[in-house]
Formats: sequence, C-alpha cells, structure tokens
Amino acid sequence: MPYFDAASSLPLHPVARQALLAALDEGWADPARLHREGRRARLLLDAAREAAAEAVGCRPDELSFTSSGTRALHTGIAGALAGRRRAGRRLVVSAVEHSAVLHAARAHEANGGVVEEVPVDRAGRVDADGFGAALRGDTALACLQSANHEVGTEQPVAEAAEFCAEAGVPLLVDAAQSLAWGRVPGRWSLLAASAHKWGGPGGVGLLVVRKGVRFSPPQPADERESGRSPGFADLPAIVAAAASLRAVREGAAAEAARLRALVDRIRARVPELVPDVEVVGDPVRRLPHVVTFSCLYVDGEALLHALDRAGFSVSSGSSCTSDTLAPSHVLRAMGVLSEGNVRVSLPPGTAREDVDAFLEALPEAVRQVRAHLDVPAAESGAAARAGSAPESGPAPGGRGDAGAPPLTVDSRGKRCPVPVIELAKVIGEVPVGGTVVLLADDEAARLDVPAWCEMRGHEYLGADGHTYRVRRRV
Amino acid sequence: MPYFDAASSLPLHPVARQALLAALDEGWADPARLHREGRRARLLLDAAREAAAEAVGCRPDELSFTSSGTRALHTGIAGALAGRRRAGRRLVVSAVEHSAVLHAARAHEANGGVVEEVPVDRAGRVDADGFGAALRGDTALACLQSANHEVGTEQPVAEAAEFCAEAGVPLLVDAAQSLAWGRVPGRWSLLAASAHKWGGPGGVGLLVVRKGVRFSPPQPADERESGRSPGFADLPAIVAAAASLRAVREGAAAEAARLRALVDRIRARVPELVPDVEVVGDPVRRLPHVVTFSCLYVDGEALLHALDRAGFSVSSGSSCTSDTLAPSHVLRAMGVLSEGNVRVSLPPGTAREDVDAFLEALPEAVRQVRAHLDVPAAESGAAARAGSAPESGPAPGGRGDAGAPPLTVDSRGKRCPVPVIELAKVIGEVPVGGTVVLLADDEAARLDVPAWCEMRGHEYLGADGHTYRVRRRV
Repeated sequence: MPYFDAASSLPLHPVARQALLAALDEGWADPARLHREGRRARLLLDAAREAAAEAVGCRPDELSFTSSGTRALHTGIAGALAGRRRAGRRLVVSAVEHSAVLHAARAHEANGGVVEEVPVDRAGRVDADGFGAALRGDTALACLQSANHEVGTEQPVAEAAEFCAEAGVPLLVDAAQSLAWGRVPGRWSLLAASAHKWGGPGGVGLLVVRKGVRFSPPQPADERESGRSPGFADLPAIVAAAASLRAVREGAAAEAARLRALVDRIRARVPELVPDVEVVGDPVRRLPHVVTFSCLYVDGEALLHALDRAGFSVSSGSSCTSDTLAPSHVLRAMGVLSEGNVRVSLPPGTAREDVDAFLEALPEAVRQVRAHLDVPAAESGAAARAGSAPESGPAPGGRGDAGAPPLTVDSRGKRCPVPVIELAKVIGEVPVGGTVVLLADDEAARLDVPAWCEMRGHEYLGADGHTYRVRRRV
Repeated sequence: MPYFDAASSLPLHPVARQALLAALDEGWADPARLHREGRRARLLLDAAREAAAEAVGCRPDELSFTSSGTRALHTGIAGALAGRRRAGRRLVVSAVEHSAVLHAARAHEANGGVVEEVPVDRAGRVDADGFGAALRGDTALACLQSANHEVGTEQPVAEAAEFCAEAGVPLLVDAAQSLAWGRVPGRWSLLAASAHKWGGPGGVGLLVVRKGVRFSPPQPADERESGRSPGFADLPAIVAAAASLRAVREGAAAEAARLRALVDRIRARVPELVPDVEVVGDPVRRLPHVVTFSCLYVDGEALLHALDRAGFSVSSGSSCTSDTLAPSHVLRAMGVLSEGNVRVSLPPGTAREDVDAFLEALPEAVRQVRAHLDVPAAESGAAARAGSAPESGPAPGGRGDAGAPPLTVDSRGKRCPVPVIELAKVIGEVPVGGTVVLLADDEAARLDVPAWCEMRGHEYLGADGHTYRVRRRV
C-alpha cells in the first residue's frame, strides 16, 4: 500500500534500525557519568555527533542534538535572538516557513519583538533581493527554509545567506526537508533539521550554531548539549539518526533524479486526468520528491479519505481537514487555490508502478468527492457526468447586470468548498458584466474565491468582511 | 560487572525492548495525520497514554509525554506559574529538588519572580509543617520531590499536598525517583517523571496536569500533547516507556523489600569497614535502592575511578569530580560532609553477592585514594597504615593557644579534600582551646570544614570569606 507522505515522516531506514538495535545495549547510561557505562555512552554520542556534523558540513562542537526539529527551531531562534538583543529585536522570516518558525516568531512578538514576513511569489519562492532588502540595522536574525515542506519549492538560501553576511545578520536555515538530499549551500549561521524526515527515529533534531554566532541558550539552564537541549536524550535514537543520515546521503543523487522524474510525471498527468486542478509550487527549483495540487470543488478531507480507501496515503493543506481550521498559511501566502489540496511526497524507493496506480485512482477519487457535493454540471464536465441535481440551491437575490442590483448568495455557515460551489452555480444566472455577491464566513473563501475567479476568468472585485463581490466576465 | 548507578539511568527493561521493537514498524508515522499509517500511530500513542495514566493514577487526558523528565519539570513549572500569574509570582521549592527544578526557579527569578527555598534537616527531609508555612497568598506554585535523587530520603508529599490544597496552591511533585515503586500519594496537582529511571528509553518524560489546575503552556505554541510538548516525538520510545512502567510495577513491592534489605546492609557495614565515613540520608523513610555516604580525606573523583577499576559503577556528589565545580546542592542543604561522596543505587535484580563484593572492595579503594593524599597518620588509622610521610606540609604561622596568635594554614588554590587534610594535620599542633585559621578558596570547604569539626569534636568558629576559624576541643 503506497505511502506518499514522506515529507511528513518516513518509516525507519534499515540502517537506522540496525544502529538503533546495536546501540540499545551500549547507549542507555548517562554520557555525563565517569563510570564505564557512562564512558561507553559518551563514545557513542561523540561518534554520532561527528557523523552528523560531517553530513551537515560543520564542526562537531557546532552541532547539538535536540528532541525534535521543532525544538531545534524554537531553541535556535530564541537563542540567536537573545544573543543578538543588543543589535535589535527585529526578526525576518519568509511567509512560508514551517509553523514551528512562525510560532517562535509569534512568541517573539508577544515578548515585544518585531517580526517581518517576506512574501513569496505564486510558486512559493522568496525573492532573494527582497529578502536582502528586508534586513535592517536592527535585524537580529533572519530565517529561511531550504525548501518548502508543503509545495516543495526551493528557496534561494545561498543568495539570502550572502545578503545576511553582508548585513551582519545571522541566517537560520530550516533544512528539515532537504538535508537528506545534500548539504545546505552558502554562508548560513544556524541550521535546524529533523531525523524522522530522512528515515531516522522521531524525537531527534539537529541544531547547528556556527562558531562566532552570538547565541544565548534559552532558560532554564541545563548542562547538556552545550546548554541547547535540556534533559537526558534517547542516545540509541541519536545514533540511529546519525547513521541513517549518512546512509541516505550515499544514494541521494541517483534517487533524487529518479524521484524527480516521477514527480514530473505527476505534475504533467494530473491536470490531464482531472478537470479543474491547479498544480502549485515551482516546477523546476523544487525538492525531488514533493508535488502539491488543489482540486476545485473538492473537500480536502473527503479526498484524503477517498485516496486512503484506494490505498494511497497523502496529506492536505486544505482548511477542510479535521486537524486544521484555516487553510495552510503556505497556500495563503502563495495566493493559490486551497480547496481539495493534496500533497504527494514520495519516499525513497517509490516504484513507478505505484505512481501509475495513483494516477489511475486519483480521477475516480476526485469524481466521488465531487459527486457528493452539489458541483454545478456546467462547471465541471467530470463532475457533471456523475452529479446529481442540487437538493437546495442558493436563494437568488436578483439578476445583477450592470444596471440591476447584484445577485446575492448566502453561504454563511458552510465550510469549504461549498461557498465556491454555490458561487459557481449562480454565476451563469447573471449577464456578462453583472455582479454576484457571496456571503461566506469560512476562512478558506478568502483564498479560494479569488483563485476561482482567476481559474474561471471572472473579475474578483474584493471582499469586505464576509461579503465577496465577483463580476462575470465570460 | 555490577552497575550501581540506577538512580542516574537504568538499562532498557526487557519489556521496554520488546515493546520498542514491536512499535518500530507501526509507530513511525505522524499520529496527527488522517491516513492509515497516522491512525495506526495514533492508536499506539493512545494506548501508551492510557497505560501510563493508569500507572500514575490519573486520567489519560491529564498526561502528556515530554522529551525528558527535565522538560516535564521545566514545562510543568513554567506552565503552572503562567497559569497562576494572577495569584502571584512566588514559587516555593525545597532546597533539595533536582537541578532541573532549581534551574527553572532561577529562570523564574530572572523573569522577576520570587523563589522561596524550604530547608531540609540533616537527613535531607523537608518538614511538612515548614513547607505549609512557606505557602502564602501570593504563592503561585509549590514543588516537592517524592524522594531525593542523591540521598534517597522520602519527602512528606501527601502532607505537603494537604497544606497546598488548603492554601489553594497547586503542588508539583517530581516523582522521577519513585514512580517505578508506586503511585505518588495525596492530592498533588502536577507530576513529572522520567522513563529512563524505570528502565524505559531515554528521551521520554511524563507531565501530568490535573483537570482544574490553571495551566498556560509555554510559548512557542505547538498543537501536540495538549500544547505541552512541542515537536514530533519518538513514538516507539513512548510505547516502550509505558509498557515498562507497567512491567516494573508488577514486582515492585517484593523487589523493593529485597533491595531495602541490601541497602540496610550497606548502611550498617560501610561505617564498620571504612574509618571516617558519614552515611547520609534518612535511614528509614527512603527509597528502597539508594544509599549515600561520604568519606573524610577522600577525593570523590579518585574514589569513583578506584571503584570503577574494581568493577563498580557509582556516582558522586562531591565537588572534586570533573563534571561539577561545586559540591552537590543537596549535601550542602543537608549540611553534611561532601568530600569523598559516593551514591550507590541498586538496579532491580541486584544480587546479594554483588553487594558483598562491593563491601569487600570499598575499604581498599578508599585506602588507595587516601594513600595518594597526605592524610595525617594520627587522624586515620586505616590511612595511616598505608600513608606515606607528607611531601610538603603546611606552613604553620604560629602556635595558637587561647592567648597566642592563631596558627594559620594556607590551602588556597587547593581542591577538596586537601584543605581539610591540611587542617587535620596541624590541629594537634595547637593546645586544646587554641585556634587554627584555615585559608581555603575551594567551595567545598564551606561544607567540609564544619562537617569535619562536628565529626572530630572541634569547634567551628565560622568563616569570613575564604578564612575559616576552628578551635581545638579534644
């Protein structure tokens, strides 16, 4: 059963499993103790640190093991901000950083700091010049991911690092998604990563702080890991993390090329196979194994379940999934459609046959979901073939042409993708040039109504609170 | 080779290993995901939470898994203080809490909070009435360990919890050392523990927050574990932790009785076998498996190495070990001798023969260490038999009797136990009633000079900076 959620977590790599088992007998004692069990544990820890540092491209004493990538980011950001307090309290981040970075940024704001978000283009990519322009004299730290975790777009980290170096601002790179594929290029200052993204165990992160970077470890104090990760760690897991990072790097270039071709195939075939799909993210400057697309008139959670029943495990950045109430901040920053969102991230070793099977199953899964919603027949050929008549249509408020009062659709209290579906149903009832007013309090509408207008060629006139105005153009 | 440092960390329990291996295949996915791998992980996590909650005696939704016991304490303290900010900013802790608690207390002070340390008696035990008396209207939180990690003394947690309940102050119990042996009694509000203390893996802690306790999770925010432990956890390790806690509880009562008898034997025999030893901690109200003693005129690190060579792994709270610069705060709060300190903590299953072998090896190990120091012959019969003549004696400043100027010994720049040894060497040179002035800048002298006076029957006249005054009485 194909698991296509590698960007979330990978099964344990065989080398990680082997290293873990080998370390269980030697790695349980406290490496800070002087007795032989402690010394043995210390040797394992030192060896793991050297292996991880070699893979990252840093000195062993610059690398601390943390209890997760999230902790590495939280600690790295707080420590660098505290160490640079004299320089200022401004934090620069891209708008599409991992939520762990954005949560740390919110915590910084709550403490009186200032956060500046650098926007991205429609492909989810930061403009390096724009990033450089955001650096000011009072900027204490800048954060930029090596590649985006939701859409796979690579960021111009090396260029951003040059701007940072010139400005004397440390750059923290969230390398969680890319470290398996290679070292992060450029003159970065701090780096964070997470082992379960490369087939290591959960509960192991890396925080690298280059020598010379001012860093003040967050309180409370603790003597372990240079004061950067309090508490007694899971040493066998650390050993497994380091061993598997080295192992995945060995075949990384070849596997990246293979997965890149599979993803290219998905990117090309999905819009051919499924009507009304937007494939998002940079088609070239991207992670080898990640592709994300959004399906108009589709409930993301329902699509996940349909694909799960068909045997495919993927994830979604749609707001209409049970674990989120708002659409993914990444899709929002990109300004792309969020409904019916699917992220496919291929684990190393994914067979071409599994990708083909996914491409075969996807159209039917989307069709099923659309069939359960009142997708307008005129709007979606695929959906129309299976679509049933609307059980309860919108209540038209009037035929809004250029001179007449606009037609109003009340979708308040309805979750995505229903407001956009109800909008699509009535757009044909006004003349070209006429206006539809949509009332919708679901947060996704803010993203999906303008995205729908762009996909359909209508004019988005803007929103005022929960009131959206759209002019029919075609 | 007997490992007697159970209070530091235990080898993986066979049940933990079995559970870990079983969970590696099922527990690698993100339990927050909707796909089948995520749901399987979620089931494992839920089952582990239920098992751990049953062992603790709480509801599953009150229990969060953290990345260590230290993290559980840091988060529990910060969250309870923040949740009770309106009540006040006073934190009450015992003077012998784990350093993780005291570090969190220092962080609270650095943020403008107030910390009150409740003292302990010479056995390391908090007086419950005294603890209750420390609670005030503006006390936001009180912390008390279930049992001390260095000397094994049990604290009156249930009584303290009653005082706290009456005062409306939540009590956080650090149960790291005792949870393997049973539930913590009484009406506590928060509880922290650490899996590697009971034979679970490292990197797993527990934080319990009773329903109704005001708690504000520390920033940055994270959605996992009720916001109390950010980041992707090591789920197989959590499964192993919960399974092994249940397993060790099954035979806990019988094993506790057996280890208690072995510890009683050590407590009785060590002072018979080794001259000038102080066995510390409560002899009765104590953990079953921990005993601590200090050896006069002994360098703690040298003794650890001597015992290590003899095949025994123990730990030390002496300042003269390489990983600390100050004597243990626990011994300091108790006011007992810190030099030559040894903690013996027996793992479950320790054979009586191993304890006997330790008792046989200890006198020779102490003798060796004393033989390398200039222990005065008249002071230690055991040491005298092997002792060599002092290579360089102290420089007497004069024969200090009641009317004469005091004799002065300059031990500045010398580490423990040398200052006390040099004091012992010259005490016979002044008449009874005469005074010796000791100059010593090693921090352990503050503890060990008065302790030596009490052990030897001399009068400790006090210290002024690095100047100590002692009157010969016998």
